Amino acid sequence: MPTDVRHDHLTVPADRPDRGRPVAPSTGRWRPLGLADVTIDTGFWADLQRLNSTAMIAHCEEWVETMGWIGNFDAAVEGRLPADRRGREFSDSEIYKLLEAMSWEVGRTGDAALEARLQALVARIAPAQDTDGYLNTRFGRPGQEPRYSDLQWGHELYCYGHLIQAGVARARTHGEDELVRIATRAADHVCDVFGHDGDRRVCGHPEIEVALVELYRVTGERRYLEQARSFVDRRGHGALGDIELGRQYFQDDRPVRETTVMDGHAVRALYLAAGAADVAVEDGDDDLLAAVAIQTVTTLARRTYLTGGMGAHHEGESFGQDHELPPDRAYSETCAGVASVMLNHRLLLATGDPRHADAVERTLFNVVAASPAEDGRSFYYTNTLHQRVPGAVPEAAVASPRASSSLRAPWFEVSCCPTNLTRTIATLGAYLATADDDGVQLHQYAGATVRATIGGGREVGLRVETAYPKDGTIRIVVTETPDDSWRLTLRVPSWAMGATLTHGATHRVVEPGYAALARRFAVGDVIELVLPMSARWTWPDARVDAVRGQVAVERGPLVMCLESTDLGDSVNVVRVHTDEPPVDEGGVVRVHATRLALDEVGWPYGSHDATDGTGVVTGSVDAGLVTLVPYHHWANRGPSTMRVWMPTAE
Amino acid sequence: MPTDVRHDHLTVPADRPDRGRPVAPSTGRWRPLGLADVTIDTGFWADLQRLNSTAMIAHCEEWVETMGWIGNFDAAVEGRLPADRRGREFSDSEIYKLLEAMSWEVGRTGDAALEARLQALVARIAPAQDTDGYLNTRFGRPGQEPRYSDLQWGHELYCYGHLIQAGVARARTHGEDELVRIATRAADHVCDVFGHDGDRRVCGHPEIEVALVELYRVTGERRYLEQARSFVDRRGHGALGDIELGRQYFQDDRPVRETTVMDGHAVRALYLAAGAADVAVEDGDDDLLAAVAIQTVTTLARRTYLTGGMGAHHEGESFGQDHELPPDRAYSETCAGVASVMLNHRLLLATGDPRHADAVERTLFNVVAASPAEDGRSFYYTNTLHQRVPGAVPEAAVASPRASSSLRAPWFEVSCCPTNLTRTIATLGAYLATADDDGVQLHQYAGATVRATIGGGREVGLRVETAYPKDGTIRIVVTETPDDSWRLTLRVPSWAMGATLTHGATHRVVEPGYAALARRFAVGDVIELVLPMSARWTWPDARVDAVRGQVAVERGPLVMCLESTDLGDSVNVVRVHTDEPPVDEGGVVRVHATRLALDEVGWPYGSHDATDGTGVVTGSVDAGLVTLVPYHHWANRGPSTMRVWMPTAE
Repeated sequence: MPTDVRHDHLTVPADRPDRGRPVAPSTGRWRPLGLADVTIDTGFWADLQRLNSTAMIAHCEEWVETMGWIGNFDAAVEGRLPADRRGREFSDSEIYKLLEAMSWEVGRTGDAALEARLQALVARIAPAQDTDGYLNTRFGRPGQEPRYSDLQWGHELYCYGHLIQAGVARARTHGEDELVRIATRAADHVCDVFGHDGDRRVCGHPEIEVALVELYRVTGERRYLEQARSFVDRRGHGALGDIELGRQYFQDDRPVRETTVMDGHAVRALYLAAGAADVAVEDGDDDLLAAVAIQTVTTLARRTYLTGGMGAHHEGESFGQDHELPPDRAYSETCAGVASVMLNHRLLLATGDPRHADAVERTLFNVVAASPAEDGRSFYYTNTLHQRVPGAVPEAAVASPRASSSLRAPWFEVSCCPTNLTRTIATLGAYLATADDDGVQLHQYAGATVRATIGGGREVGLRVETAYPKDGTIRIVVTETPDDSWRLTLRVPSWAMGATLTHGATHRVVEPGYAALARRFAVGDVIELVLPMSARWTWPDARVDAVRGQVAVERGPLVMCLESTDLGDSVNVVRVHTDEPPVDEGGVVRVHATRLALDEVGWPYGSHDATDGTGVVTGSVDAGLVTLVPYHHWANRGPSTMRVWMPTAE
Repeated sequence: MPTDVRHDHLTVPADRPDRGRPVAPSTGRWRPLGLADVTIDTGFWADLQRLNSTAMIAHCEEWVETMGWIGNFDAAVEGRLPADRRGREFSDSEIYKLLEAMSWEVGRTGDAALEARLQALVARIAPAQDTDGYLNTRFGRPGQEPRYSDLQWGHELYCYGHLIQAGVARARTHGEDELVRIATRAADHVCDVFGHDGDRRVCGHPEIEVALVELYRVTGERRYLEQARSFVDRRGHGALGDIELGRQYFQDDRPVRETTVMDGHAVRALYLAAGAADVAVEDGDDDLLAAVAIQTVTTLARRTYLTGGMGAHHEGESFGQDHELPPDRAYSETCAGVASVMLNHRLLLATGDPRHADAVERTLFNVVAASPAEDGRSFYYTNTLHQRVPGAVPEAAVASPRASSSLRAPWFEVSCCPTNLTRTIATLGAYLATADDDGVQLHQYAGATVRATIGGGREVGLRVETAYPKDGTIRIVVTETPDDSWRLTLRVPSWAMGATLTHGATHRVVEPGYAALARRFAVGDVIELVLPMSARWTWPDARVDAVRGQVAVERGPLVMCLESTDLGDSVNVVRVHTDEPPVDEGGVVRVHATRLALDEVGWPYGSHDATDGTGVVTGSVDAGLVTLVPYHHWANRGPSTMRVWMPTAE
């Protein structure tokens, strides 16, 4: 009899049709598995989920209370608005993102105390909803601006989007309750107001689109899908009007269907693309799906940082032009990382293209994991690739501007990222594996248990044993299998040249992409995938001008970086020697570095009368072998200068 | 008898004590000459002054009318504010900058029609001034926010600064009249409200400081100087409070006296430094003067583009960190160029340090001159050094966002730059020459006439004949001279290695800096300075990461650039060969270029398995000799891609 490998604490009811899946398309190349099917048990992502459980979620709860953002709902109920309102126009959404995170987390862990806090929070939101379903603390009351009077910047539909996502999470982990009803009422209200015969405008910030499609998937109510499609189709024709940042800021300059590469505000563009992908999948709109897939792949090729980070510009939090990727002040917003993971996961499910799984992995390890501090109580909003001066430690009790420091801040005046992280980390299990009629696919690697039903109602169970990404060996133990043949498919990351796959006596080298084994497995069978993990030099495309003559180091999926903490000097004057590979001793990565001695001179441009530029280089000091740290870990040891791309000495 | 070399049309009364000097410090290394002393007759700057006279000023007059920014004053008088107010909170200042330009221009040319327009404009401003001297169309009336209720962003004192500068220009070219009285009343009002026993705050945007010092210089009224000093001293202690961009945005994070390198909003930092220099000079505050000089030289060394442009960031229009100078989206605001010229001119007068004259020249040719289109009817607000995609032609009748296009726009919603250019170009003559008791100094070169009184009341007259910067030969003809010895001092630009100076039979090589000839001159004497003009390669400091492996071309004071118009392809894939000097045939500059053939690939980072980056380079095409154009001329032939820094093929 097959072993039940599910965790004791996993509490998503196994009979729930959604099985705790954050994204549940009705069709596509692969079927997602949910939190009822996959648990992460050990290693990097388990640690991060534990940090989320023990620190991050509670930290966010404290801050939304302290900032008065929950209090806005109390004030609404008690008639104290607009006088007592706190925070920006989108602050309601932080409560909703947190409710989504709490819903997934309760579903994942069965934490009764968290369930009680979740219910208490819902009880404070509920009475603020108007009888027609409208819910927003910023608009619509006497003394406030009217409902939907500022679709450019008001974020009302964006807030509903996160409310509905919270309702979806609750429905998929618990079933109908007050939060689900609030979300559904809000969705009905949106359809009433913005439906075919109603207001034909769109929200300045996409997000409602993904939410309505997912609510359709939960409820089967086609009206939600049609509303989402309508929002996607309306956008791109100038309905939002002009702003100083240009219509591309909110993707209203051209329809998403005609977009070839992403532009404007990165989070907005990525959320919209994710919503368009959802609509395309449900409607069988292959043209729209292809447009979204192509623009995503092109954006990965031309407008994405080595870390997977998206958005080069602080101004407008936006994408730059093709290959305009300066490491200085790389904006690479944490939320854009979350959004890229959302989008690429959807495209992976729809198309099976491994580039999307590569993007998910790269972005999770080097953007999402980089944001929270080791203690889970401060966060990066932006994720620069070159820090030229050590930042100042943010004040512990004060919300920071969104991008003020090289150190993580406990909270921000615009604090979208911390709550976005909590909901993402709570659902990490859903990114590991998928299924189809023929078998199971593993896309991301962590110590985990996986259970899936494949074609013919056959049950498959797997246990994944690995110290990845510290180590490249991934052992997959079959814990449950039907008697007949099925296919186990394993992703080989694009960087993993020379990976090997072993099953019993068979042993072969596998190419990046997907490697499959189709056969009759037996319980206890072990399949071993070995990914070559030695640290490697990585060079940029010849068009990325800003890092010409520079090189980075990667180890497995991890982007490494150099901190002044390890160099003992500013990273601004370092040169690295690339004639030998980086030294990698069990994951401790070191490179041979030189520090330039530089004259402080006047005008910094001139004739080439010395070997390096204007003759300011007066010598160099051999710094020996200098340790690099994973980029996601930087600045956990205090203020530092840091760079991912290092000039070569050659 | 000496020839009177003054232009027929020069109308600044020669008996005016200020002689039409825009900046008139009471002490310093060198005494400025004014518009009554220096006229530009031929060549590059004469052409630009003609463009200003015939197109730019009238263009600005039309636009401030069309935009309703003059109409705001009518509306104030007619009680139609705030309902009928148009434009941003600082729009009054555009009228004042234009009045300043018109004042200088009438003084320079005696244009009677322009004088009539100037008086008509003043007549519309005057009645809007309150009896206590307050004048602003944005604040203080019923239905408007109270006076001085928003010093962070309200710009009231900034607007006075420009009003007072207009009054100073009028006083120095014409004498007291209504404009001078309006300005003086405003200055008195400022001293009444913000004096010792009054409001101790400062304005979010410096500018009042330079204006009050100059009005002190005109009137001798010490109260204005003391008020300026007080504003300088108060700033830097957090009086303005916190904003998302940080206190350094408006230089309120530390006193200017303690600032070692400029930070925050570039125009604000530069205006403040200019005002602090003025205060220091008048008060004999050598410590403050030294602080301003050091921070300026350091900013030139570490935070200035090759063009002289300042301000790397779009966000906050601000300086970047040391050596953070990405050519992509270089902000390099036109007004920061104007401000840098203002500051460096003041420091040149005070210290005699030729680095400031170099900065003035570089910035005038490559930022100030780059902004207006050939027809003087559209302008750059920002001055990028790398344009990756051709921009769209702005609509002729619509004000553009401040930085939306690679093409110059007729007007902007924030339109500080066009009017700032008009006042600067009208006063270009004042930057050419100075005097001291011993003689005359020439700092900038143009076909010009110069007349100066040196020690002992001796009169010197010079005629400068040159086609500079097209040609490097500068002939100075003595047209008036005392019988005894005096010193002619000529600036040799920092790039001019191997310059020669000839006078009669004496001929010598002169080093960059200042070269002097002291002797008894005779009328008709010719002194010839020859500056080597051949186009040259220019390399960046080893710390400017963003242009590593790239090279620029300069010719004399001109920064050159490559446009796709001349390459016949995008400049993004070019490589240049630096083994030979650029080809320079009479000012037509060409470089040997190669175009890379590149695969469109996926992920743009990887192993070094080909000669250039990730193997995307599949070949190259010899583009032969490709013509470069002066940077200030770019995009006059329609949309293009452009770059100043070009990757080397080596």
